[in-house]
Amino acid sequence: MRFDVTVLGCAAALPSVGRNTTAQLVNIHEKRFLVDCGETTQVALRAGINGDSLRMMRIDRVFISHLHGDHYLGLPGLIATFNLMGRTRALTIYGPPDLERLMLLHQEVSGARLNYPLNFVATSVDAPVLLWEDASVEVHSFPVKHRIPTTGFLFREKRREPGVKHEAIRALNLTPSEILHLKKRQDVLRSNGQTLAWEEICVESPPARSYAFAADTLYWERVIEAVQGVDLLYHEATFMAHHKALAVKTYHSTTTQAANVAAAAGVRRLLIGHLSARYKDVCAVIDEVRLGFTNAELARDGVTYSIEQQQARKTG
Amino acid sequence: MRFDVTVLGCAAALPSVGRNTTAQLVNIHEKRFLVDCGETTQVALRAGINGDSLRMMRIDRVFISHLHGDHYLGLPGLIATFNLMGRTRALTIYGPPDLERLMLLHQEVSGARLNYPLNFVATSVDAPVLLWEDASVEVHSFPVKHRIPTTGFLFREKRREPGVKHEAIRALNLTPSEILHLKKRQDVLRSNGQTLAWEEICVESPPARSYAFAADTLYWERVIEAVQGVDLLYHEATFMAHHKALAVKTYHSTTTQAANVAAAAGVRRLLIGHLSARYKDVCAVIDEVRLGFTNAELARDGVTYSIEQQQARKTG
Repeated sequence: MRFDVTVLGCAAALPSVGRNTTAQLVNIHEKRFLVDCGETTQVALRAGINGDSLRMMRIDRVFISHLHGDHYLGLPGLIATFNLMGRTRALTIYGPPDLERLMLLHQEVSGARLNYPLNFVATSVDAPVLLWEDASVEVHSFPVKHRIPTTGFLFREKRREPGVKHEAIRALNLTPSEILHLKKRQDVLRSNGQTLAWEEICVESPPARSYAFAADTLYWERVIEAVQGVDLLYHEATFMAHHKALAVKTYHSTTTQAANVAAAAGVRRLLIGHLSARYKDVCAVIDEVRLGFTNAELARDGVTYSIEQQQARKTG
Repeated sequence: MRFDVTVLGCAAALPSVGRNTTAQLVNIHEKRFLVDCGETTQVALRAGINGDSLRMMRIDRVFISHLHGDHYLGLPGLIATFNLMGRTRALTIYGPPDLERLMLLHQEVSGARLNYPLNFVATSVDAPVLLWEDASVEVHSFPVKHRIPTTGFLFREKRREPGVKHEAIRALNLTPSEILHLKKRQDVLRSNGQTLAWEEICVESPPARSYAFAADTLYWERVIEAVQGVDLLYHEATFMAHHKALAVKTYHSTTTQAANVAAAAGVRRLLIGHLSARYKDVCAVIDEVRLGFTNAELARDGVTYSIEQQQARKTG
């Protein structure tokens, strides 16, 4: 089961040839989520990766962190392009409250009538919110600290139930009710005094995977709470450590701060993006990050970062 | 003196890698005018042409034909980028009345305070309007016929005064008042009955050059009037002739119609753009245009089309 983050763009502020502004395609079990949508995102989506289609029409949910242009200006074009491409399935956009009136004004002035339903759900900067879930995936927003209302997003697999071993069903003659309890990881006490330990009778499912996206933000302790223990964290690092004052002034983070968030949150892997174009020596940048958190790398446009399935812990 | 049209993008509706939506940089005597501003225009401007800078910060006037996304969605990003690049000189944007509130809403939600004055001037679909002029250039809008309010733009050099031959000034002992009349191409009758013919005494200036941009539009006779005799006409041809019904339905033109406009208006050279991506054989497209107007070519992204100075007509 796939859990991929494809970086379509991770440049700070000014796009240039080959360096798009922020956009990511998150693919969890073939469900596709777009995270931010900087200018030119529709072009990157249509181009695909190394000739492989990204199946952009399968994107049903778009999550916009905040209303600085480098994070959403590709959205009106994407909405129009979906329409021209014959979309009929609904599209839901999650983002700051002002996003809806902005997109509706674009619709109004263009005189366009969309052939698909376009829904908006407002995010909140007060507390984490469960924005959407189905049987296997959930998506939350969480507040980050930027000059204008901004949230990060947390994508989480739901852990599957453990499987009951076939031979145990036969050998122990398990009843449907007993199986139901065991699958909920509950031990069962039989009327004859026998205890059925779920860990002995079941095969545990692999751990649920998770991905957190935190851009743009000041270093902030509540971000550490929100991204606690994720498998992959994308965190902005607009500046190197010696430009910390500039980071504070512009509501951004440094390399060191991003590493500190990853370390304090106990994440498994850190992806750094939104780096200011002023730094030509990207090796020095990633070296600085790795001083604080070893398993880190710089995000690159057009690269897919996969979260591999971990082995289930041995269940005795 | 330069009169150049650089095509930054001429794709219809859907941008793709290497095919930007509509934008052109018109450079007349080093005055730079941006015409339309599809998504990614700022990237094309910053990239320059073959390594030569387009000096985008010198653009003081932007002309937007209409509010379909492929003609203006690059504008909010360009406005923000100008700010980040330290712009202080004013920027004036000419376009449909709704453009102002749309751009101001983008400003509002981003919380940005621009460090330069941003002015808006509304175009009209009722009649041609002189939008701007200085001593040597004038820019007009003219109505075209599209699904929503749309105008074309006409860029015109002002013809310079003829020069009075130095030897004539001495030989005829011309007075300042006589020189003034001659420079206005008026003959002078002296009190002694002598007639000074301006065409004999002056060196005529080269003819004024002109460029007209007509996209997107139905075939319409008023466009022919508006672009009468220009040196270069950019006209959309979204469809080939056998898709004429589709052109009518979508308020666009065919190859044949664009050629007919050019021929009827007596323009010198025709540039075709906004071609639907459905036509893979572009040679067949341009062949069809040339059946109706020989001096035609397909616009290409990243190419500069120069209008050369014509020789002045011989003045006796």
